[in-house]
Amino acid sequence: MQNVSGSSAPVRGVLLDLGGVVYVGDTPIGGALSAVARLREAELPLRFVTNTTRRSRRQVIADLQRMGLRISDDELLTPASMARAFLQKHQLSPFLVVHPELVEDFAGLASGHPEAVIIGDAGDCFTYERLNRAYRKITEGAVLLALAMNRNFKDADGELSLDAGPFVAALEYASKRKAVLLGKPSAEFYQLAVASLGSNGDDLVMVGDDAEADVSGAISAGLRGVLVRTGKYRAGDESALPSAPDCIADSLNNAVDWILQRHQSFE
Amino acid sequence: MQNVSGSSAPVRGVLLDLGGVVYVGDTPIGGALSAVARLREAELPLRFVTNTTRRSRRQVIADLQRMGLRISDDELLTPASMARAFLQKHQLSPFLVVHPELVEDFAGLASGHPEAVIIGDAGDCFTYERLNRAYRKITEGAVLLALAMNRNFKDADGELSLDAGPFVAALEYASKRKAVLLGKPSAEFYQLAVASLGSNGDDLVMVGDDAEADVSGAISAGLRGVLVRTGKYRAGDESALPSAPDCIADSLNNAVDWILQRHQSFE
Repeated sequence: MQNVSGSSAPVRGVLLDLGGVVYVGDTPIGGALSAVARLREAELPLRFVTNTTRRSRRQVIADLQRMGLRISDDELLTPASMARAFLQKHQLSPFLVVHPELVEDFAGLASGHPEAVIIGDAGDCFTYERLNRAYRKITEGAVLLALAMNRNFKDADGELSLDAGPFVAALEYASKRKAVLLGKPSAEFYQLAVASLGSNGDDLVMVGDDAEADVSGAISAGLRGVLVRTGKYRAGDESALPSAPDCIADSLNNAVDWILQRHQSFE
Repeated sequence: MQNVSGSSAPVRGVLLDLGGVVYVGDTPIGGALSAVARLREAELPLRFVTNTTRRSRRQVIADLQRMGLRISDDELLTPASMARAFLQKHQLSPFLVVHPELVEDFAGLASGHPEAVIIGDAGDCFTYERLNRAYRKITEGAVLLALAMNRNFKDADGELSLDAGPFVAALEYASKRKAVLLGKPSAEFYQLAVASLGSNGDDLVMVGDDAEADVSGAISAGLRGVLVRTGKYRAGDESALPSAPDCIADSLNNAVDWILQRHQSFE
């Protein structure tokens, strides 16, 4: 474990990424469940902030419960929830390029409004036909909403696979238009998490395995960022960041050691 | 017809784009065949330079013949021919993400070399599975070769559809690597065309419907560029170019009027 910046402010809340930090595929990462339990015992408020768009909110909560981790509905923040709020605010109807499992998170929205194209990690549903329909809608004026810009994720076979970001980049290139980013590392996403904890951010720590979306995004939003060497982490991921992570930890368990030192010392 | 820059140098050879200039789908554009015939009568050497990667060289020549236009093999320049030469020069084996019709242009190459990922306009063959395999190869060190970076093309239904460029952009974003571009507007592509006409470029005119790949690319390579208002052309396409087209013509027929004025006046 490496404490890079040596920040000494008290920690009053923690944001945790899920995939690659708490679990990979459908298996908890060693020590992760007890690490979360230690945060709960210390009564640190938690938010689980995920860019995963292959599962609905309902499924994410059920998956975690099946793995032995109970979280409440208001502890979970997903890009789909933000997209839903965006559509309602701007009176838009969704044209979805997302995984079938995510569709339920967009149920019941008004139809007949101007359309917004919504890109998630659609996996095998990224077909030419669907992307081409999305492209034509964008050229006709539809807003392009990116649930995430992640380049890749650690797939069930242990290898990196293409996430939503590359397909958003494809549509941006084709249309010469810029997507509105809703997930990490957008400032709006972190602001929502920070506000939901009644904080201004400087007493919060974000833990993630994605150097850009998790760590750099959180630091840009005024939080501290801890990078874990699990999940998609590859040696040197941190070297290209504009600011160094506050801590680089071998796992969530080690990250929690670091967090609790900075919490307990101020109680 | 609008002569923008008023260049007065003699024209000694012509490069013609095919899709959107000579034909759309499988139908010649009105006046295009007789316009080519007028260039032939004026004994102007011609090269047909296409970024189309949905048809093999053999098929392109057969398609043109079926439409009533005979061209010889050495008059046709395609990105696939350049890719083949690149693979042979660098001793690479191809991993193809291309339309099934294009595969024959890569037949007979040595296997077992390090791989290069080759992206053409694969249409419905742009599947997540294929793009993901390509991505993994690039992360393992394979070179990324783009047969073209075109954003779109005018499809058989008259609408714009996604071309190869967006999918190259997707893999560039995912891998943080830059593709080697083989088709228009790469300088190498135009240099090959210019050399095959025994010219240094300043006496050649390129005619195309793609403001960036055809007109801007040709001007950057030292040729004159004529933009035609057929095919994928949309009003204002020329406004974002770094240098104005030498001529904007309603069709190939009008473009040939402009060319012949600049040819005959120096004979």
